[in-house]
Amino acid sequence: MISDLERAQVLSEALPYLRRYHGRTMVIKYGGAAMVDEPLKRAVMQDVVLLHLVGIRPVLVHGGGPEISETMKKLGKEPTFVNGLRVTDAETIEIVEMVLAGKTNKGIVSLIEQYGGKAVGLSGKDGSLFVARRMKSGDTDLGFVGEVVAVNTAVLRPLAEHGFIPVIASVAVGEEGETLNINADHVAGQLAAALRAEKLILLTDVPGLLEDVARPETLLSEVDAQQARELLASGRVERGMIPKVEACLTALQGGVPRAHILDGRRPHVLLSELFTDRGAGTMLYP
Amino acid sequence: MISDLERAQVLSEALPYLRRYHGRTMVIKYGGAAMVDEPLKRAVMQDVVLLHLVGIRPVLVHGGGPEISETMKKLGKEPTFVNGLRVTDAETIEIVEMVLAGKTNKGIVSLIEQYGGKAVGLSGKDGSLFVARRMKSGDTDLGFVGEVVAVNTAVLRPLAEHGFIPVIASVAVGEEGETLNINADHVAGQLAAALRAEKLILLTDVPGLLEDVARPETLLSEVDAQQARELLASGRVERGMIPKVEACLTALQGGVPRAHILDGRRPHVLLSELFTDRGAGTMLYP
Amino acid sequence: MISDLERAQVLSEALPYLRRYHGRTMVIKYGGAAMVDEPLKRAVMQDVVLLHLVGIRPVLVHGGGPEISETMKKLGKEPTFVNGLRVTDAETIEIVEMVLAGKTNKGIVSLIEQYGGKAVGLSGKDGSLFVARRMKSGDTDLGFVGEVVAVNTAVLRPLAEHGFIPVIASVAVGEEGETLNINADHVAGQLAAALRAEKLILLTDVPGLLEDVARPETLLSEVDAQQARELLASGRVERGMIPKVEACLTALQGGVPRAHILDGRRPHVLLSELFTDRGAGTMLYP
Amino acid sequence: MISDLERAQVLSEALPYLRRYHGRTMVIKYGGAAMVDEPLKRAVMQDVVLLHLVGIRPVLVHGGGPEISETMKKLGKEPTFVNGLRVTDAETIEIVEMVLAGKTNKGIVSLIEQYGGKAVGLSGKDGSLFVARRMKSGDTDLGFVGEVVAVNTAVLRPLAEHGFIPVIASVAVGEEGETLNINADHVAGQLAAALRAEKLILLTDVPGLLEDVARPETLLSEVDAQQARELLASGRVERGMIPKVEACLTALQGGVPRAHILDGRRPHVLLSELFTDRGAGTMLYP
Amino acid sequence: MISDLERAQVLSEALPYLRRYHGRTMVIKYGGAAMVDEPLKRAVMQDVVLLHLVGIRPVLVHGGGPEISETMKKLGKEPTFVNGLRVTDAETIEIVEMVLAGKTNKGIVSLIEQYGGKAVGLSGKDGSLFVARRMKSGDTDLGFVGEVVAVNTAVLRPLAEHGFIPVIASVAVGEEGETLNINADHVAGQLAAALRAEKLILLTDVPGLLEDVARPETLLSEVDAQQARELLASGRVERGMIPKVEACLTALQGGVPRAHILDGRRPHVLLSELFTDRGAGTMLYP
Amino acid sequence: MISDLERAQVLSEALPYLRRYHGRTMVIKYGGAAMVDEPLKRAVMQDVVLLHLVGIRPVLVHGGGPEISETMKKLGKEPTFVNGLRVTDAETIEIVEMVLAGKTNKGIVSLIEQYGGKAVGLSGKDGSLFVARRMKSGDTDLGFVGEVVAVNTAVLRPLAEHGFIPVIASVAVGEEGETLNINADHVAGQLAAALRAEKLILLTDVPGLLEDVARPETLLSEVDAQQARELLASGRVERGMIPKVEACLTALQGGVPRAHILDGRRPHVLLSELFTDRGAGTMLYP
Repeated sequence: MISDLERAQVLSEALPYLRRYHGRTMVIKYGGAAMVDEPLKRAVMQDVVLLHLVGIRPVLVHGGGPEISETMKKLGKEPTFVNGLRVTDAETIEIVEMVLAGKTNKGIVSLIEQYGGKAVGLSGKDGSLFVARRMKSGDTDLGFVGEVVAVNTAVLRPLAEHGFIPVIASVAVGEEGETLNINADHVAGQLAAALRAEKLILLTDVPGLLEDVARPETLLSEVDAQQARELLASGRVERGMIPKVEACLTALQGGVPRAHILDGRRPHVLLSELFTDRGAGTMLYP
Repeated sequence: MISDLERAQVLSEALPYLRRYHGRTMVIKYGGAAMVDEPLKRAVMQDVVLLHLVGIRPVLVHGGGPEISETMKKLGKEPTFVNGLRVTDAETIEIVEMVLAGKTNKGIVSLIEQYGGKAVGLSGKDGSLFVARRMKSGDTDLGFVGEVVAVNTAVLRPLAEHGFIPVIASVAVGEEGETLNINADHVAGQLAAALRAEKLILLTDVPGLLEDVARPETLLSEVDAQQARELLASGRVERGMIPKVEACLTALQGGVPRAHILDGRRPHVLLSELFTDRGAGTMLYP
Repeated sequence: MISDLERAQVLSEALPYLRRYHGRTMVIKYGGAAMVDEPLKRAVMQDVVLLHLVGIRPVLVHGGGPEISETMKKLGKEPTFVNGLRVTDAETIEIVEMVLAGKTNKGIVSLIEQYGGKAVGLSGKDGSLFVARRMKSGDTDLGFVGEVVAVNTAVLRPLAEHGFIPVIASVAVGEEGETLNINADHVAGQLAAALRAEKLILLTDVPGLLEDVARPETLLSEVDAQQARELLASGRVERGMIPKVEACLTALQGGVPRAHILDGRRPHVLLSELFTDRGAGTMLYP
Repeated sequence: MISDLERAQVLSEALPYLRRYHGRTMVIKYGGAAMVDEPLKRAVMQDVVLLHLVGIRPVLVHGGGPEISETMKKLGKEPTFVNGLRVTDAETIEIVEMVLAGKTNKGIVSLIEQYGGKAVGLSGKDGSLFVARRMKSGDTDLGFVGEVVAVNTAVLRPLAEHGFIPVIASVAVGEEGETLNINADHVAGQLAAALRAEKLILLTDVPGLLEDVARPETLLSEVDAQQARELLASGRVERGMIPKVEACLTALQGGVPRAHILDGRRPHVLLSELFTDRGAGTMLYP
Repeated sequence: MISDLERAQVLSEALPYLRRYHGRTMVIKYGGAAMVDEPLKRAVMQDVVLLHLVGIRPVLVHGGGPEISETMKKLGKEPTFVNGLRVTDAETIEIVEMVLAGKTNKGIVSLIEQYGGKAVGLSGKDGSLFVARRMKSGDTDLGFVGEVVAVNTAVLRPLAEHGFIPVIASVAVGEEGETLNINADHVAGQLAAALRAEKLILLTDVPGLLEDVARPETLLSEVDAQQARELLASGRVERGMIPKVEACLTALQGGVPRAHILDGRRPHVLLSELFTDRGAGTMLYP
Repeated sequence: MISDLERAQVLSEALPYLRRYHGRTMVIKYGGAAMVDEPLKRAVMQDVVLLHLVGIRPVLVHGGGPEISETMKKLGKEPTFVNGLRVTDAETIEIVEMVLAGKTNKGIVSLIEQYGGKAVGLSGKDGSLFVARRMKSGDTDLGFVGEVVAVNTAVLRPLAEHGFIPVIASVAVGEEGETLNINADHVAGQLAAALRAEKLILLTDVPGLLEDVARPETLLSEVDAQQARELLASGRVERGMIPKVEACLTALQGGVPRAHILDGRRPHVLLSELFTDRGAGTMLYP
């Protein structure tokens, strides 16, 4: 049982962190278990509202992998992947957009509003926030899959200035107005760079970047950009972690001072990372 | 063939209308054929961008009936209606929201952006724009169906001031954060009142309000609120038109000077109504 | 007879032009027949109000040749010209200023206000908008005739921001506070450059720049700056057109992307030029 | 010879007046000898610039009687008056406007600019500042003579906020856009009321309001509104003074705390009145 | 030892309080032990900086009893009190002002700046923040002692808007410009009312308001205004607590919803009160 | 006796100076006789209020030498000086701060408010306005004496924009939050440079800079920076004048166009210098 005095003490120890992060933008890629497990989900949204109230400007980016596949199956379509990328035909992209922008996104908005925050759900098509061009994977035509070539943040400023937390679904608009499926990690990194954010934070289902993927005790708590690039080149990074490390590197290169890969399975991991001494997961720096 | 001189003449004759509507807000309920037929759809969105450029502030509200039923069927659910209201169980409301906020809404946004406008797609959950409570139809529990009890326009102002056209899907947030299905006509009327709009414009698939539904030549081109109420009471208004007439009355009562029921099947009917002498469809006034 | 549908069509086709010119400043030199013929005059002012309402920022500059000579004659003074420049003694400059700033200028203001615009009439002396130094024509002392050496646009910004259309009489203030007669075409070109306008538009009494002045069918619809300079050097430009071409070149050199010489005798020629595909008169580009 | 110490002393004694008048608007009707005599004219304009620099917001209103008649005669028209009001036919109103707005007005602007102020010359037609309706004098049709029925100060605010001194010629716009001749004293009183000015100041050619018009030593240095009304009713006020007293009463009724009739023949009478203990001329108070 | 998880949990539980107090002004009367004991002092200032960072607007008011008496003694003057009020002759008020505004005040400012806040020290004379008139205690002339009759908050707004925390020494300006000694508790109550603060918080050296002053266990944790007035009337309130209860009543009457008497000897009592469930000391409500 | 006409004349002659100094910042170091002699003190404060009212932005900096020594003696401490610098132990710096920030400063604020100005008293600790590091004099440890290494003017802007005159006591904050005694002349020079002031004005007890200190008739009315540096190097500048000349040089080097050493014993010397032709004392220019 924590006493009142201890509680006050804990709050008081947040002072240097509050000072450091005041008025700064943080791009948070929301995904993994924290997006599926109801109590974790609620804890993340509470934390986001808290960050906003103490003067930080959180911007949420989310994908929605499992929900998409689930809806596809219900509609009788079998999800197919090539090199980890979803093959996205016309029907599929429609489902992707419906699920991401119509279900996952609005669900997050709703939770934030319930905890007293003001949220606005957007997709990358609103205000042409994410403009992408189609990409291939080698010779395979992946269909409506794209990589972001321009980030137009104009729609975010008026919302932020009026106290709204932007929640952004990771779809983009193509050159002919078509919807394109994009990687949520990558675009979070690009957005952090475009906003000159203070931090990019990626919520995942692993403790962080591991020296040896088989042994959790080999967690790398700090890695510089050079090391991260070498790790990628070495092939020792697990497939699921590759886009996350790439996103961090994109952010660092774009002038973001710190990028974090955090274990979203730990409750209130955002608060632990931002307001206590020990931090959590892996921090990447330039 | 229209000559250059005639063209200039036509433009020039728009002057008094431009003057009258400058800086005014118009809530446009978008629905019916204009939402299904591709060329009509494009024409409406062009017109909306044009209205915005000439100094009018359009706000779009849309439902999405046919697309919802279609997706439900694909997912193996049979749409059921009681007194014209969709019975909406938990699975159905999820589909409704996905389709409206994730597909229809973002499609409209995309078209407006293609024609050079800047659009932001919202649902009634963003910024708690539409707060609703559950409603029953007599003794029948309709499930996740609601009627709007509060309209919070705070999220619209910063967007409008920065030149974004709001496109709003007709779902609302309930008192416990749940999504509720609402009538798009009704909420357009309430929104027009909340924004003290200059006009409420409902795009439909009929020529307007008819004295005798069987005879199109009995179009009522102008009706005052009293007459409209009497028509409703008389039971002579076609079922589909009832919510539209009700929405117009809500708007008029809320201080909106004019409400219009227009035939969305006529190309550029918005421009005809707003910028030429003859008008179109039925105009309701207080 | 143009149908409603055709009318809506014509309006709709203005969209790309509205988009292109939105928020842009256009300096319009008003003169010639359009200034004398009552219906033409009214049509121009209607068009100016319309441009303003659709989001363009028109700035009018005018001279007033015929009215000045007429008033001089009434006062018993015989107008004298040297190389097309009015010899301007102390009495004459007083008449020039009275007529331009007191009669022509306020007449234009009045018309714009009648058509629902808000206008403010200025001369180059207000806020020291046009500062000039005296000029000679060869050895001849022309008296109170000057060429503009500084354009102070400070007075225009607050008016424009509050929705007023500036109407400017082409007189300037000299270095000792005296009034100086200046060329309205030239100063329109300088003002367009100072305001970084989108266009300079000169209303004249000819169809445009002609290859062969005797043959209207030799109209040059587009001319680049280099060609325009060569035409001037060739001596083939009619005397009255020389200052107009010079003004266009000044504007182009000052960063204005397009300058136009239009036939002010055609009703609504401003709208034809700006909002239809075919344009009108001669367009000069860098 | 005044010593430096005495000079500093004099300046220092202005402190309480500077404090009282800071940020306040003063409407100054400029007329009479101060408008004809060159040194007096320059002294008034210097004072106006000084008032502006020390934080007062001067607004000048002027007529131009002698210059109008002079120009009329040059043009071969004989001025006619009925009950002190100029009979104003179509030709005459054109001359009135030319002289007031084109000559007198721009001359004042020019002087203020020379002394380092920033001035903008307006007539009552600019921004529909003065809207008048035609008036008759008994049964006599005076032609284009009007009385002001609306004062639209919208054009003055942006100019004042950007540091421009408005100089306003006393002509108005009629209901059909025509120019109307108005009384400069009257409109100065109405403008002072519309602007909720701190003072209305009328510069005249007499020492002030006299108990006995034949004896200057009967100057009334202070008169309340009731006394002023009685004086008017008594018929003892000189004809030329009647509109001035009426203007003062209009201002007082409109909430202006003080109105002054000053002797414009005394150099720097504005500074004497505003910044020294003894004041000058006649002060009217509610 | 508190774990990271527990820490995050504690922070997370502050959410509802952060939400409630966001953007609200809190007037904090700083005094007693918290002003003398170095670690307590530092803890209070840390908390004030933290409040500011999380979006609350703290305004500090302080007296400085012990330091004044100490300095007086050093200067060979013996402090005298009548009914608990300091008899304040000309020499004494000089010492009071020097100590409060020159020593205590700037010491607090310095601490806040050290903890990363931005502070500006003021006295009630700056911007005539506190205007007082002299008061007597029965027949005794207390000298330069006053009660505040006007609170001019104009100086606080620009400082608050630019992120400065105001720190205010409790001296006032008298009607002739003289300095007056005022009661810090009283003026804190008046300031809270003038600012329409969310809370008035008085830091004292007792646990709160006690039913029986001899028994700390009779702490009244909540008291309404009526009860507080009865307690005062009953004579059961300890002398030192009287002005505190009066200040709370002044604040409540002025529209402040809550006033608190807290034990400043408990470290971080501000945080305990504001951000935990149990609160601390006595809360007064209307 | 000065006549009204002469008074108006004197005021009128201030015009060119008002124009030149409008909106400009002037840093005034207030000290010497003008700080001790009651009528002189009042005259200076009147002048400061007047400067503010006519559109100049005065910023006052003051020390308080005699009052500090006097209070030290009352407290039984003997002032000690090394090379003209006060040896400042812990007790002394406390007295210095109390006297400067608590007595002298608030006394000046009070006078300005009495004359109708709005003043805010600050010390160099407020908003960390003056940050200093400790300095030695040769080998002697002077204790809490510092030289300013950073000037943070952020706290001054919001005050100035809301019409408050800043009055600043010359103490600074050291690197560990301690108070440091600084030279008021020096810091006035640094502040003038940091604010890019139009003038630095030092009020002293001598007529100005003298060629031969024994002979007042050798007053140097204008000196350029080079000459001033040579004078300093020559050793012919009186000790008390050295920091003043240094402060002037600091200001000039920092871009301040003019620095003045004025005789504060002359009443209204500020007005004489600023608003009359002859000026006063010594002017230094780059």
